[in-house]
Amino acid sequence: MKLHWSPRSPFVRKVMVAAHELNLADRIEPVRTVVAMKAPNRDLLLDNPLSKIPTLVLDDGTAIFDSLVICEYLDTLAGGRLFPRDGMSRWHALTRHALANGLLDHLILWRNEREKPPERQTPEWLDSFALKTRETLARLERDAAWLDGEPFDIAHITVGVLLGYLDFRFDDLRWRDAHPRLTAWNETFAARPSARATEVRDG
Amino acid sequence: MKLHWSPRSPFVRKVMVAAHELNLADRIEPVRTVVAMKAPNRDLLLDNPLSKIPTLVLDDGTAIFDSLVICEYLDTLAGGRLFPRDGMSRWHALTRHALANGLLDHLILWRNEREKPPERQTPEWLDSFALKTRETLARLERDAAWLDGEPFDIAHITVGVLLGYLDFRFDDLRWRDAHPRLTAWNETFAARPSARATEVRDG
Repeated sequence: MKLHWSPRSPFVRKVMVAAHELNLADRIEPVRTVVAMKAPNRDLLLDNPLSKIPTLVLDDGTAIFDSLVICEYLDTLAGGRLFPRDGMSRWHALTRHALANGLLDHLILWRNEREKPPERQTPEWLDSFALKTRETLARLERDAAWLDGEPFDIAHITVGVLLGYLDFRFDDLRWRDAHPRLTAWNETFAARPSARATEVRDG
Repeated sequence: MKLHWSPRSPFVRKVMVAAHELNLADRIEPVRTVVAMKAPNRDLLLDNPLSKIPTLVLDDGTAIFDSLVICEYLDTLAGGRLFPRDGMSRWHALTRHALANGLLDHLILWRNEREKPPERQTPEWLDSFALKTRETLARLERDAAWLDGEPFDIAHITVGVLLGYLDFRFDDLRWRDAHPRLTAWNETFAARPSARATEVRDG
């Protein structure tokens, strides 16, 4: 399997953490693929017309995306437990994934916005990104009990990736200051071999 | 069940088309919820810290989102066939959903960008949105055979909602001109009772 990959993308990292948890990392061939909102990648367009990473390409050429679909595909391939199959545990896990993943979407937009020259920024958007980030982190802190629960699933992975991305691109927010339970949980996440093998980085 | 709802949102429409297809629409109480990138909705934040619609709230207060998770929840509740359970048909359906849904995400951003005063727009973003839209529609046109196939699933719904949204907000693109197969398929989609009951509109 080929994976359109970048060391900077939190969504790629989510897939790679899942692959390591499932002992599938050795079967994935990462292909460095550079994308940006300003510059679609024309090679990637052949596999994914949205020019988004991660995109997984199976040996027969079948493309699978987005990151959530790739993770569930890998989980099924490995007979894993990252996605509860049935019952309310499935909807809880997928909603918690959507919360952390949706905040990552906002953070990517926020970063794009705040790196513009000031005269082209939209102040209401910056306020809105900041508010949604505060609200989401407050919710995760309030409900942190599930993070300590078992089994470790796609929601745990995505919260870990989210907190790692905050450290990578939004260090100025100092998210740990107001979130002691998330801070403690993040220590356990960051110590997992799957997390250590996949830290986001420039380069 | 309560659904944070708006007649303008394609993602809400996706859920409502699914609900009609599954004969669950009568069990959903729509609550008009206004959101915008510039103005988060503080009531909605209690159920969804990202302030995004649709958000489904079960009778016991459990919130379920995003639109894909709500659709799969409803499908499971009804014992439906909108989500293939196993095999490659599942990954095909979910990837096709991700393609159409991802383009909807881009169109929302494109609309926000092009409505700004010209001096605050980012021309490279506008070019990128236009390119991804062309590429995605070309791919859907090329692969349109699956649209005519059975069973009607979450990918069909999302392509139908995407084309309806293009008519609603991007009429200037004249998408039908270069896409005869999509145009023909869209006629069959738009004639379904589930589509007729849920057309996006201002108001």
